[in-house]
Amino acid sequence: MDFELDEEQRLLVDSARAFAAAELAPHAADWDRDHHFPVDVIRRAAEQGFLGLYISEDDGGLGLSRLTSSLIFEQLAAGCVATTAFMTIHNMAANMLACFGDQALKDQWLPGLIGGEFLASYCLTEPDAGSDAGRLRTRARRDGDDYVLDGSKCFISGAGSTDVLIVMARTGEDGPKGISCFLVPGDTPGVKYGRNELKMGWCAQPTRTITFEGARIPASNRIGPEGQGFVYAMKGLDGGRLNIASCSLGAAQAALEQSLRYVEERKQFGKALAEFQALQFKLADMFTDLTASRQMVRLAAHKLDHQHAEATLYCAMAKRFATDHCFDLCNQALQLHGGYGYLNDYPLERWVRDSRVHQILEGTNEIMRVITARRLLEQGGMLDNLL
Amino acid sequence: MDFELDEEQRLLVDSARAFAAAELAPHAADWDRDHHFPVDVIRRAAEQGFLGLYISEDDGGLGLSRLTSSLIFEQLAAGCVATTAFMTIHNMAANMLACFGDQALKDQWLPGLIGGEFLASYCLTEPDAGSDAGRLRTRARRDGDDYVLDGSKCFISGAGSTDVLIVMARTGEDGPKGISCFLVPGDTPGVKYGRNELKMGWCAQPTRTITFEGARIPASNRIGPEGQGFVYAMKGLDGGRLNIASCSLGAAQAALEQSLRYVEERKQFGKALAEFQALQFKLADMFTDLTASRQMVRLAAHKLDHQHAEATLYCAMAKRFATDHCFDLCNQALQLHGGYGYLNDYPLERWVRDSRVHQILEGTNEIMRVITARRLLEQGGMLDNLL
Amino acid sequence: MDFELDEEQRLLVDSARAFAAAELAPHAADWDRDHHFPVDVIRRAAEQGFLGLYISEDDGGLGLSRLTSSLIFEQLAAGCVATTAFMTIHNMAANMLACFGDQALKDQWLPGLIGGEFLASYCLTEPDAGSDAGRLRTRARRDGDDYVLDGSKCFISGAGSTDVLIVMARTGEDGPKGISCFLVPGDTPGVKYGRNELKMGWCAQPTRTITFEGARIPASNRIGPEGQGFVYAMKGLDGGRLNIASCSLGAAQAALEQSLRYVEERKQFGKALAEFQALQFKLADMFTDLTASRQMVRLAAHKLDHQHAEATLYCAMAKRFATDHCFDLCNQALQLHGGYGYLNDYPLERWVRDSRVHQILEGTNEIMRVITARRLLEQGGMLDNLL
Amino acid sequence: MDFELDEEQRLLVDSARAFAAAELAPHAADWDRDHHFPVDVIRRAAEQGFLGLYISEDDGGLGLSRLTSSLIFEQLAAGCVATTAFMTIHNMAANMLACFGDQALKDQWLPGLIGGEFLASYCLTEPDAGSDAGRLRTRARRDGDDYVLDGSKCFISGAGSTDVLIVMARTGEDGPKGISCFLVPGDTPGVKYGRNELKMGWCAQPTRTITFEGARIPASNRIGPEGQGFVYAMKGLDGGRLNIASCSLGAAQAALEQSLRYVEERKQFGKALAEFQALQFKLADMFTDLTASRQMVRLAAHKLDHQHAEATLYCAMAKRFATDHCFDLCNQALQLHGGYGYLNDYPLERWVRDSRVHQILEGTNEIMRVITARRLLEQGGMLDNLL
Repeated sequence: MDFELDEEQRLLVDSARAFAAAELAPHAADWDRDHHFPVDVIRRAAEQGFLGLYISEDDGGLGLSRLTSSLIFEQLAAGCVATTAFMTIHNMAANMLACFGDQALKDQWLPGLIGGEFLASYCLTEPDAGSDAGRLRTRARRDGDDYVLDGSKCFISGAGSTDVLIVMARTGEDGPKGISCFLVPGDTPGVKYGRNELKMGWCAQPTRTITFEGARIPASNRIGPEGQGFVYAMKGLDGGRLNIASCSLGAAQAALEQSLRYVEERKQFGKALAEFQALQFKLADMFTDLTASRQMVRLAAHKLDHQHAEATLYCAMAKRFATDHCFDLCNQALQLHGGYGYLNDYPLERWVRDSRVHQILEGTNEIMRVITARRLLEQGGMLDNLL
Repeated sequence: MDFELDEEQRLLVDSARAFAAAELAPHAADWDRDHHFPVDVIRRAAEQGFLGLYISEDDGGLGLSRLTSSLIFEQLAAGCVATTAFMTIHNMAANMLACFGDQALKDQWLPGLIGGEFLASYCLTEPDAGSDAGRLRTRARRDGDDYVLDGSKCFISGAGSTDVLIVMARTGEDGPKGISCFLVPGDTPGVKYGRNELKMGWCAQPTRTITFEGARIPASNRIGPEGQGFVYAMKGLDGGRLNIASCSLGAAQAALEQSLRYVEERKQFGKALAEFQALQFKLADMFTDLTASRQMVRLAAHKLDHQHAEATLYCAMAKRFATDHCFDLCNQALQLHGGYGYLNDYPLERWVRDSRVHQILEGTNEIMRVITARRLLEQGGMLDNLL
Repeated sequence: MDFELDEEQRLLVDSARAFAAAELAPHAADWDRDHHFPVDVIRRAAEQGFLGLYISEDDGGLGLSRLTSSLIFEQLAAGCVATTAFMTIHNMAANMLACFGDQALKDQWLPGLIGGEFLASYCLTEPDAGSDAGRLRTRARRDGDDYVLDGSKCFISGAGSTDVLIVMARTGEDGPKGISCFLVPGDTPGVKYGRNELKMGWCAQPTRTITFEGARIPASNRIGPEGQGFVYAMKGLDGGRLNIASCSLGAAQAALEQSLRYVEERKQFGKALAEFQALQFKLADMFTDLTASRQMVRLAAHKLDHQHAEATLYCAMAKRFATDHCFDLCNQALQLHGGYGYLNDYPLERWVRDSRVHQILEGTNEIMRVITARRLLEQGGMLDNLL
Repeated sequence: MDFELDEEQRLLVDSARAFAAAELAPHAADWDRDHHFPVDVIRRAAEQGFLGLYISEDDGGLGLSRLTSSLIFEQLAAGCVATTAFMTIHNMAANMLACFGDQALKDQWLPGLIGGEFLASYCLTEPDAGSDAGRLRTRARRDGDDYVLDGSKCFISGAGSTDVLIVMARTGEDGPKGISCFLVPGDTPGVKYGRNELKMGWCAQPTRTITFEGARIPASNRIGPEGQGFVYAMKGLDGGRLNIASCSLGAAQAALEQSLRYVEERKQFGKALAEFQALQFKLADMFTDLTASRQMVRLAAHKLDHQHAEATLYCAMAKRFATDHCFDLCNQALQLHGGYGYLNDYPLERWVRDSRVHQILEGTNEIMRVITARRLLEQGGMLDNLL
């Protein structure tokens, strides 16, 4: 076993941290307040390869492991959670094309997705099929050389500002096996966008409902064979969960560092907050939980990179554990800042608001528990097979 | 012992609930989004007596107990936390005048405060004296028949929109004993208001810094003798903590009721959420914690009403317990709503944001623990005296 | 509302505390270590009326309310949890006879039960019907003027040392409606006792399996009509849960008081533990949770005393809340004593072991959540009816 | 990074598991009940190398890393926590001799310690110097070619049954720098043993106070130069904390596996416990916490193996995190077994009792927080140096 970053990872982490410090952190509060989606900055991120981190080098990406990608997302998120979270979704969507699309479709879209010319949204969730995605009802009807899409998707990150929609739609029977995956250009006639939802956080990226009303795309825009869409979606989610969990790690790390600075500066009752033992203990537990969260994410990423049979289980556990503990950490950091933590002059309340949704999306943390429990109960009381 | 509401309390609760449902709940989301302080509605609340709930009838108030007042605040907060929270602060400030002011000053201001003509802010906290209020530095210098105030206050609820400032300022020595209490008209020359702070929540009420630059008031605006300000401020806070805790109860009650409705409506995997046992257990714990929180607030209110020697202790415990558990409850209710909980189409995320500050203000929950521990450790290991 | 003890309650509490200090506390460690059931002391408790606290005065009991009885159990448990817990079960069993038995049966047994001549066990749980008591299989077959019992009961407190068994047995159809209640003399032929179970705690009272093999009792030993047994058992449990929760309160109060003494005496790093802020905060939270637990128990007792429609709900919540928090409190008190907490020279580890089972018996705390959730979900999202 | 066991580790884990299953698990309940210290079985463990796991091969040990040793202790503890915990202390003590003793002393004692001929106790804690070991008062006075020891030690594992005492005693000034380390043969005249303490758990190993009354040992029994004792003791504790945390992992793994079997077998309300979602979620969280605990221990062991500058920090965090979470896990597993969990027919209550002390010894978990906070606060708000 080895728990240390290698040299390449250290360099990548350093450059991601530098990008976050220069391009994200100084503007994150403004973007949040103004509900501004910083497309230009995301394009600059593409210049660093951040929009195709784990797409293979053959396909034009950086070809990094999921674990190394997680390290990078963590650093970026410390600069701006919402923007980084969008980039993780873009990576997931682009990678689905890279992994499962045919060469012509990849040639058409992948360079632009990796290079930042095109941004992508991932379209799975529907109003009546949240946690239970296998019941989705958006339909893609074959019509000659085309498919025609009807239905609606909700909670779509980036929608309205993205160029490419990776859409799960039903081409066949009820249930997961009747679902296929499509690349739908964002400006396809019949694709309608709802208003930009007002959310608790993630305000630096738009979230919209998308309605498909007879939206026609060439059959060649289907990714992989019919019926594989749900499988792809679930595979994508394993990594998507790590990505989101990595964003939580970044927020938590930033919140803890900010707290450590604050307790040195802030005086009450004639001494620095850092001298109050109850706060010291709180800080100790925060760092311990952050460290454990990080280990869970890296362990799961390693399993995913090595196609371990239990990768899905470990990704589910890592997502649950890290997003829960890191939200709590951000919230404790807010408390430690007292009234200042509640003002948006300080980033604390934004980190709380932004990291809150990580407990919900890419599968709620309740669904993570369902996934975890199911595998546990299949072991007949012997856990060795899961290790 | 008796734990049931009496007939008068039931009637008052019903009328408060009706007011909240008609006047507050339908607009709370708009006020929050638009950062609108609904002064007109607060004035209508005055018609019900809600701006002088526990001011004595002799002084023109309703003369209710703190316990009955808590029941009313709880109902109002279920309609709009931020607006109700302001009303509780107004009540606290007006009551300090009623309890400790001389008759002339009361005659001048109290009818307007109770009637809603004047709104009041409570000005204790300073940038360098948060939890440690005894170190405040705003100075009130006696100058003939006047006092001249210099200094600054922060986190002042209502500031800029209120007519009366109840200000703690130093007239003498360092420390708590050198502090006096003043009524400063909001439009006094030399009173400067900062910008409306951007906050995580409580957006329906303005929060501003106030700077006093040679603000001159008549000496007759002093409330009580010199040197009593800190005593009054602390007495006020006992009740203020109950008020704020009552607002948390209201938010939590609303969040739980909304959750109970949602789990009946929302279907996943072919059945209502209400049928999932893990959610059932969560709901059970939420109601249990709400019930315990309510009991703690009522117990403390009863102690305060009867001038129990340990009222301060019980108010501190009630505030800590109720605001912590009710925030958690709101946050769990958000989670239970999944993605919808994160949108401000639903009130969940607002309840989370609004109730968050209750863990911080009127003394942070860390200060509540300091107060509690100090009394415990004075008992020599025998708790009977505290009961 | 009124949250203070009245004069009679204060006197009763004082005398219970005195009894606990004189008769229970000095011996509790020995009884625990030696697995000694102090029947003689329990008989002396009867002289104080402690074996018939809430049995009506007409029936020879003290006729106290459940709330006042709870106050007394709390004091006794601070002296010895296991012994007091047995006395609460005895009270519950004797009270079932008093409430539902016919006069002849009462005349025969009740004076002895109240007076301490006879001790009673409550026999509901079976190996295959734990939480799901309605499925119990012990059968009572009518045979002329007798019933003949066959089957087995487990986890029976006092079994082997008690004179009277209050037994739920099936006389009719499957399910709760086929169950009847019987008084079985402990020495009835065909009643066999298992070995004294080795348990984590509650070592000062025996726990045994009881097997009925053709145990014949007169039909007049049936308590109430056939088919009412489950109803009686459930009614008994409402109060039984309060009793057990009261025992947890007593353990927690004792553990907190012991902790307060210890932190004053024990020095580390040159100062008393009491000066370490992290411990102070812990103590503050412990007392706050104890206070909330006590309020929950008293609220539920009040509901039960007044036959409130939701008494069962409140008893379930109180039992869950108080036994969970008080166990945690005892466990934290152990931690605070460091290595000394782990030795049985100190009572901490005993309090942890004794209070642990309160989370399990009289309905596990999971069953308490089932009861609570069920009522919540029947409200259609309006909680007013539950208040 | 790499998170998987290598081939050698897998083999060692398998053989440790086999030993635990054959030699420990079948007897653990008896040893606990009878307070029997299974010296013969510990000697058989020596045949497998388990008494010198990380002592270098040159010195006759297996020369394994701390990480691999942790894997082995984890397996052994799943068989019997108390016995394994003693073996970890023996390993720690023997390794101090191996690392810091001179060759003659090693030649005399080390083969016997590794081979199981001699068992060792670690003697640091004193009645008035628990967490604050630097204040210890046992004195070793130089007298010609001898040292003469006076003072007392408490909570000494194995004391009275061990052959070798590794004793920290004061040879110089007050404070940590005046402490030296000695090997004291257990049968040295003037070494007096107290009674076998009655403890909550760890009943399969004796714990005694040791009093030194003019106990004379040759000066050559000093380990390392004078004044180094505290440094050695602290170094030993880094690894000792991992060892104890590993024992908690083993207990938790065993408790979780037992729970998984139980929920399949046990039926309530007509279905297996495994079908109840609330229990499923509980199991999922248990496995997640166990996995995180394991990662924390392995991360810290890796740091210690590579003499990472922050090894002490990571060992402290791992000990705190793993022993807290694994105790909770055992306790939840007990709850899940209902009344059966409380009986010592099942191992649940023993695992709870045994793992409880891990939160206290080798430095309480409060001290772990002190260590963690101190390092955090030295970073000036930049955590990179700690990673």
